[in-house]
Amino acid sequence: MNTVFAGPVRPTPGAVSPLRPAALARVEGGFWAERRRINAEVSLAEGPERLEAAGNLANFRAAALLRTEGGTVPPGFAGDFQFQDSDVYKWLEAACWQLADSPDDELAAEVEAVVALIAAAQREDGYLQTYYQLGGGEPWTELGWGHELYCAGHLIQAAVAHHRATGSDRLLAVARRFADHIDSVFGPGKQLDTVCGHPEVETALVELYRTTSERRHLDLARHFIDRRGHGTLSSGADRGHDRDPGPEFWQDHTPVREATEVAGHAVRQLYLLAGAADLAAETGDRQLRAALVRLWDDMVTTKTYVSGAVGSRHDWESFGDAHELPADRAYAETCAAIASVHFSWRMALLTGEARYSDLVERTLFNGFLAGAGLDGRTWLYVNPLHHRARSHERPGDQTAHRTPWFRCACCPPNVMRLLASLPHYTATTGDDGLHLHQYATGVYGGDGLTVRVTTDYPWDGTVTVTVDEATLTGPKTLTLRVPAWCTRYTLALNGAVVEGRAESGWLRVTHAFVPGDTVRLELAMPARLTVAGPRVDAVRGCAAIERGPLVYCLEQADQPGGLDPDDVVLDPGVPLTVDRQPGLLGGVDRVSGVGRLPATDERAGWPYRPLGAEEPRSGEDVRLTAVPYYAWANRGAGGMRVWLPLAGLG
Amino acid sequence: MNTVFAGPVRPTPGAVSPLRPAALARVEGGFWAERRRINAEVSLAEGPERLEAAGNLANFRAAALLRTEGGTVPPGFAGDFQFQDSDVYKWLEAACWQLADSPDDELAAEVEAVVALIAAAQREDGYLQTYYQLGGGEPWTELGWGHELYCAGHLIQAAVAHHRATGSDRLLAVARRFADHIDSVFGPGKQLDTVCGHPEVETALVELYRTTSERRHLDLARHFIDRRGHGTLSSGADRGHDRDPGPEFWQDHTPVREATEVAGHAVRQLYLLAGAADLAAETGDRQLRAALVRLWDDMVTTKTYVSGAVGSRHDWESFGDAHELPADRAYAETCAAIASVHFSWRMALLTGEARYSDLVERTLFNGFLAGAGLDGRTWLYVNPLHHRARSHERPGDQTAHRTPWFRCACCPPNVMRLLASLPHYTATTGDDGLHLHQYATGVYGGDGLTVRVTTDYPWDGTVTVTVDEATLTGPKTLTLRVPAWCTRYTLALNGAVVEGRAESGWLRVTHAFVPGDTVRLELAMPARLTVAGPRVDAVRGCAAIERGPLVYCLEQADQPGGLDPDDVVLDPGVPLTVDRQPGLLGGVDRVSGVGRLPATDERAGWPYRPLGAEEPRSGEDVRLTAVPYYAWANRGAGGMRVWLPLAGLG
Repeated sequence: MNTVFAGPVRPTPGAVSPLRPAALARVEGGFWAERRRINAEVSLAEGPERLEAAGNLANFRAAALLRTEGGTVPPGFAGDFQFQDSDVYKWLEAACWQLADSPDDELAAEVEAVVALIAAAQREDGYLQTYYQLGGGEPWTELGWGHELYCAGHLIQAAVAHHRATGSDRLLAVARRFADHIDSVFGPGKQLDTVCGHPEVETALVELYRTTSERRHLDLARHFIDRRGHGTLSSGADRGHDRDPGPEFWQDHTPVREATEVAGHAVRQLYLLAGAADLAAETGDRQLRAALVRLWDDMVTTKTYVSGAVGSRHDWESFGDAHELPADRAYAETCAAIASVHFSWRMALLTGEARYSDLVERTLFNGFLAGAGLDGRTWLYVNPLHHRARSHERPGDQTAHRTPWFRCACCPPNVMRLLASLPHYTATTGDDGLHLHQYATGVYGGDGLTVRVTTDYPWDGTVTVTVDEATLTGPKTLTLRVPAWCTRYTLALNGAVVEGRAESGWLRVTHAFVPGDTVRLELAMPARLTVAGPRVDAVRGCAAIERGPLVYCLEQADQPGGLDPDDVVLDPGVPLTVDRQPGLLGGVDRVSGVGRLPATDERAGWPYRPLGAEEPRSGEDVRLTAVPYYAWANRGAGGMRVWLPLAGLG
Repeated sequence: MNTVFAGPVRPTPGAVSPLRPAALARVEGGFWAERRRINAEVSLAEGPERLEAAGNLANFRAAALLRTEGGTVPPGFAGDFQFQDSDVYKWLEAACWQLADSPDDELAAEVEAVVALIAAAQREDGYLQTYYQLGGGEPWTELGWGHELYCAGHLIQAAVAHHRATGSDRLLAVARRFADHIDSVFGPGKQLDTVCGHPEVETALVELYRTTSERRHLDLARHFIDRRGHGTLSSGADRGHDRDPGPEFWQDHTPVREATEVAGHAVRQLYLLAGAADLAAETGDRQLRAALVRLWDDMVTTKTYVSGAVGSRHDWESFGDAHELPADRAYAETCAAIASVHFSWRMALLTGEARYSDLVERTLFNGFLAGAGLDGRTWLYVNPLHHRARSHERPGDQTAHRTPWFRCACCPPNVMRLLASLPHYTATTGDDGLHLHQYATGVYGGDGLTVRVTTDYPWDGTVTVTVDEATLTGPKTLTLRVPAWCTRYTLALNGAVVEGRAESGWLRVTHAFVPGDTVRLELAMPARLTVAGPRVDAVRGCAAIERGPLVYCLEQADQPGGLDPDDVVLDPGVPLTVDRQPGLLGGVDRVSGVGRLPATDERAGWPYRPLGAEEPRSGEDVRLTAVPYYAWANRGAGGMRVWLPLAGLG
């Protein structure tokens, strides 16, 4: 095991980041522990079967055979996309983080088998992408759609995870050879002075630099980040695509340093910004940092769903215009939520500000987690906040039915790697001691302070922190994040209430801690109604039910008589109530309120009428029951609403 | 000239339709006359240049050369789509309707030149599509994307128009040869027992039958209509498209007779239904008629914008789910509005019901007309009801900037043919005499009654009908449509008020008319506020300004200080006022109201907040000015809103 907890983002000692991931972070119980157990026992365990069934592993075997036996290219690359290899790399990365956390011989053996397969498929010159090796064409000729640097990035991230989890250099050597090859091909005066259509290699190269200490990996990352936005990518015609996605899609429309708003393909945009944040941390580049703060602010202020999800448009999986946040047609790809967590976390490390972890929390519990079925083996690709009971699904929609795997299977292994590495995002250390960003039962420590957290979060706002070890004498500071959603909280040290207000989301407790000391944070979390700003047209006159970090929704399955959530309005004057349901949806707290039915089921005819002649409500009340949004669509395909029209508003 | 007014839909004497297009319909002054003047003098006149510049005519020349000179295929089919020929056919059809209305030697000469070119390009076996003739591949091998029957349909429609306008059989002969060829290829037991990816040939074949009296054209139309919905089309992979649009896109998901809702690609759906309505009229097929009534009801009740526009989704240019009607991301293609007019008009003829012409009126004045720039030479492809000032346009969006021509140029010549044939949609005759469906200054007649209409519609609701000829003695009935938007009206016969109520939208005046008799209908048209039904989530808490048949919008250009329409709410308590602006946007009546500004420009930070803590309004009032929606985006690209948030609703 390493001295530092194995996680995906590890700034070097020279980095300017005021915060570093904690040296110790173990989630041992509660909400996330259960989701991580399912991730390990079901999702990760079944990964190799899925990758076998989809042909991803066969592609590597074929490429290896071609390399060792020579001869003609075997026919039949499996899969519809150039980036099939990345599914394997992402599963592998996830499995490595899982192994770092909880050794498992069977999983370890599978990991080594896949590592061997990857190594065997790599060409002598370091190049590796089975699509092109198996007859898909010449390497490096389709920079737009080819995803070669994207796949290289995922290979590098898997190799770094493998190295950090196992200490082995075996996959790292493969990654280094590929990185060297890339370095020989890309750059000013070299064969190609352009970038990849899908960012990803940037963050990977910084992490490779952090692992190997080879400066040229960092330089190459900087080159790729700075080269973007200069229109070097072709128009996208390289795969005969008949629609032009435009430069925003490729993240080639404007240099990151000059950009004022997030735009284009959401995952591409956020992977790029994650890489740029890594670069800014390692180089201290203040201009780049300022751009990243500006872009994050733009995203959060104008382009983020209440669920934390981003990327509202189906068209090209892209960010919409400011305040374009439709609930029904939300694309809100699971991978975009993951990318948002990646970016926000790096910003938290880079700036030390709590608001970035506020968004991480919101996204994890809602926009991200909705993508993962409770069973660990079914997934949502898009995550709308409204599903009509009478919707009929169309190709590519994949809204209400969880699916075991996708033709474009980017999301499932991406969920796996985030859940497997989740402890990494919970705690940091810095000059001022230990900080808890996320609350989960477990052990966290670094810089001479180790604490044990006990909590029933997100169902209960009480977080008890007990000091396990305090190796240095004198005062130390324990910093706790008070989530932005929380307006009332109390803090007690060894049972005595401590007066003190959070500053910009951080609540600091400075004390000469000794083992056994307890800090108890109580976050009041009544169910509450939330409305959107006036520029969010899509949900005007509606409220969302929230409680703690959780966004709630009405699912048809929970309503009396199978009432369609589209057929009711919420009475905001009746207080919401909460009850615990251990047997429901893996165990949830439900929130109940009162709704009102329409007087008539007036659905026929022209749906527009004079102001003042609106459809009347009967005044008949009905009990409405909300469940956490993350758990929706686990019981078939009824109607679902996050945003509920408010009675009295027409 | 024909004894019957030359128009696009002409049921045979044996058709079951209770209404027939009037034998005489001439629009001679007022609103539509001006738009038709611009259509003739600018749009139609410049058509050949556009078609030359885009290469459409060159394709025909090349195909003709190949046919006469033989040899190898000349390189370079011009244009990106298989259906480039259809642009030529649609312009030609439009030019023929224009010639039927107003002879013009120059236009007539251009028409004949294009007809000659088309005839020269046709293969010996009757086949004609320059894309495939010029090396695009084997004919009839790409039924999904090939658009061969679609182009054949537009050729047939152009030929029918040419024949009706000029009496010539020259283009009709080309169309008949192609129809014969199609008949030899398609059908049970023949080479192909499938359909075209894009409906259009169905309505064309019925009209060809109406022109030639050859029953097999009608039989072929019936075959194509009945063959749909049985999944005979390939998956769409025939052009290497990498996304599968699914069977709804092709209108191959369910047989028309069994369908319960409009779905898939809006233009394809509505062209198909127009053809089915023609078929039902000629065959008296009651099952088909019942399906069409059901589908029209579904469209109007759940999938139509207040502008009459349809097809809300950008994805595959499709209908959305019921009540999925976003204002900002409305696709609302101009061609879909045209297709809606085609379908509704045929339903008006088939059923005799006024509500179909209500929708025709609404669509013509709003969703359709918005697609045509005031200058006659710029166009909108999509017609959103909300445009953000800070929107940045992306490839394929084409929202706020009118464009001289499109890469996919379906809309401009489609607008031209509807404007050129517009009088056709205004009046009918039936067993009960003459009916006026639309109000425009002009002469209308048939069945022994000819009337002259004088009106300043849509700016004024007074319609004066003077009898010009009444060739039969005894009582006759003149039937006037009272639009559904109108709640107060009076009728006078020779100056005396007539008591009488409209029944289902029809107001009947039975009288022994003699020349000089006047019927005066006064439709009250105060500016009004309209709200949407509670299931239209996208515009909850908002109202639209309407006046008469016109939908209004706020454009940034008209607001004080260039106020962004997104930054204001409307006070519904202050009455709206109307003023005439002859110099504005070709002459419009403006509507003014009072809005309220936000107290602070609070745009930063998380945009969701607790209910009760909404952004306050200052109470500061501002004068808001609305212009007709059809005229928007003719003064650059500022913000625009049809739906205005109402003050007092949060």
